[in-house]
Amino acid sequence: MADFIEPSDTITTALAARYGAAGAGVALRWNETIGGLLAHRSVRAYTPEKLPPGTIETLVAAAQSAPSSSNLQVWSVVAVEDPERKAKLAEYAGNQAHIREAPLLLVWLADLARLEALAAAHGQPTEGLGFLETLFVGLIDAALAAQNALVAAETLGLGTVYIGAIRNRPEDVAALLGLPPHVLAVVGLVVGHPDPARPAEVKPRLAPDVVLHRERYGSALDRAAIAAYDAELASFQRGQNLPEQGWTPVVLKRVGSAAALNGRDRIAAALRKLGFGLK
Amino acid sequence: MADFIEPSDTITTALAARYGAAGAGVALRWNETIGGLLAHRSVRAYTPEKLPPGTIETLVAAAQSAPSSSNLQVWSVVAVEDPERKAKLAEYAGNQAHIREAPLLLVWLADLARLEALAAAHGQPTEGLGFLETLFVGLIDAALAAQNALVAAETLGLGTVYIGAIRNRPEDVAALLGLPPHVLAVVGLVVGHPDPARPAEVKPRLAPDVVLHRERYGSALDRAAIAAYDAELASFQRGQNLPEQGWTPVVLKRVGSAAALNGRDRIAAALRKLGFGLK
Repeated sequence: MADFIEPSDTITTALAARYGAAGAGVALRWNETIGGLLAHRSVRAYTPEKLPPGTIETLVAAAQSAPSSSNLQVWSVVAVEDPERKAKLAEYAGNQAHIREAPLLLVWLADLARLEALAAAHGQPTEGLGFLETLFVGLIDAALAAQNALVAAETLGLGTVYIGAIRNRPEDVAALLGLPPHVLAVVGLVVGHPDPARPAEVKPRLAPDVVLHRERYGSALDRAAIAAYDAELASFQRGQNLPEQGWTPVVLKRVGSAAALNGRDRIAAALRKLGFGLK
Repeated sequence: MADFIEPSDTITTALAARYGAAGAGVALRWNETIGGLLAHRSVRAYTPEKLPPGTIETLVAAAQSAPSSSNLQVWSVVAVEDPERKAKLAEYAGNQAHIREAPLLLVWLADLARLEALAAAHGQPTEGLGFLETLFVGLIDAALAAQNALVAAETLGLGTVYIGAIRNRPEDVAALLGLPPHVLAVVGLVVGHPDPARPAEVKPRLAPDVVLHRERYGSALDRAAIAAYDAELASFQRGQNLPEQGWTPVVLKRVGSAAALNGRDRIAAALRKLGFGLK
């Protein structure tokens, strides 16, 4: 795919949606795929329409095409379409209605069980699997795979939203999905047809200079940029008929206490129960 | 982007490269972006050509457009172009020559320092940041962001390869990049122009049925599928003039011992030194 320069108002519009005022003056290279990536929005309202044949296979092929650390492929995915099972997972994951509403929930797994079983079959040791590092590889590789599936889904006109709350009750999710030891449900991905009557919008992000550092890490806190972002997000929230909170109070509440983690403060204990070494 | 059906030999060829014989009979939906995702290959040979203006900004805009858990945005990225700094990072990351060769190394960070600093500025608590869960959010969000950048880079004709070995020596990387406490370099991403004289090929993956489960997790080990994959990968290795090892012995060696983790067996200790709670 060759890159080409769109009429600059296309880029300007995309940058304004993604960054608000902070997008002015950012110079981008551009093509249709990059335009699609910048236009991502999380969809929390779906029609009951089923997915066309071949959709799951396509998302999985895209996912498997993502890089895998040392080609270990320490991830798997469970495709859940059964309404009762989806409803149960919705209950476990903070009662999010869109899990019930959409036709598909993909549950991405950090899966060390495959290599455990392979090693056992060959009478080989698995000391390395007991380290936190190998779980990290599972988390990262599952995330890379899931993101490729998300990108593919959006090019097919489908909507998606990640479900981090699948980690609220790891043992219950593991029991429901029949996960063996050494497997963690990392993140869910809802997939379906967006309801045109309840459209989602692009959410503005922190200004690029806040997350991008050159050569060395700069300041951890650019208060002016964060204040501008608070105003930008308040304006976005107003447009969505949401409380105008901005960013700062919301994220500080979210990280302020163990209770705000909705059960995920016990993830280390849950992981040990699921057989992970965490060394 | 509408999806359309390519002449089926395009899909057949893509599936054969990705899955070998196991790709026969897989039915996919298709468009140019999905074709691009399936054609991914990691590039370890680059020309000295510089990146066009706007490339880093484009990759970062794509990265920021990836979903972020609760919009916390607990990641950052350091763009390293300085040859001496890249050489030092190459040394820290298992002496991988392509880090020196390519013009850019993006170091993706799980960054809890921004919220620590924001909370401190507002006199608010950060109990939630001390849990393993919040580090997981950083790892996952950094990975989602990095993967969007990778996809964007490939559509611009650039090559990429992830550097997991950036975790071999976390404290040294942190010191070199000036990372504050509560920041971990999760993964590196080399970006540059692929050397046409040393082309990379699509690496076959495990058959889709091995990683895709329906409704509930099936068997952790399909020995016939793994044996077929060992043969497929041996054939790929032969084509690359690499030792014909297949998959099983390579991955079992990689996870068999702490020593095979190349220093990453001490990641928990390193994380504590970097200020992470890991509760």
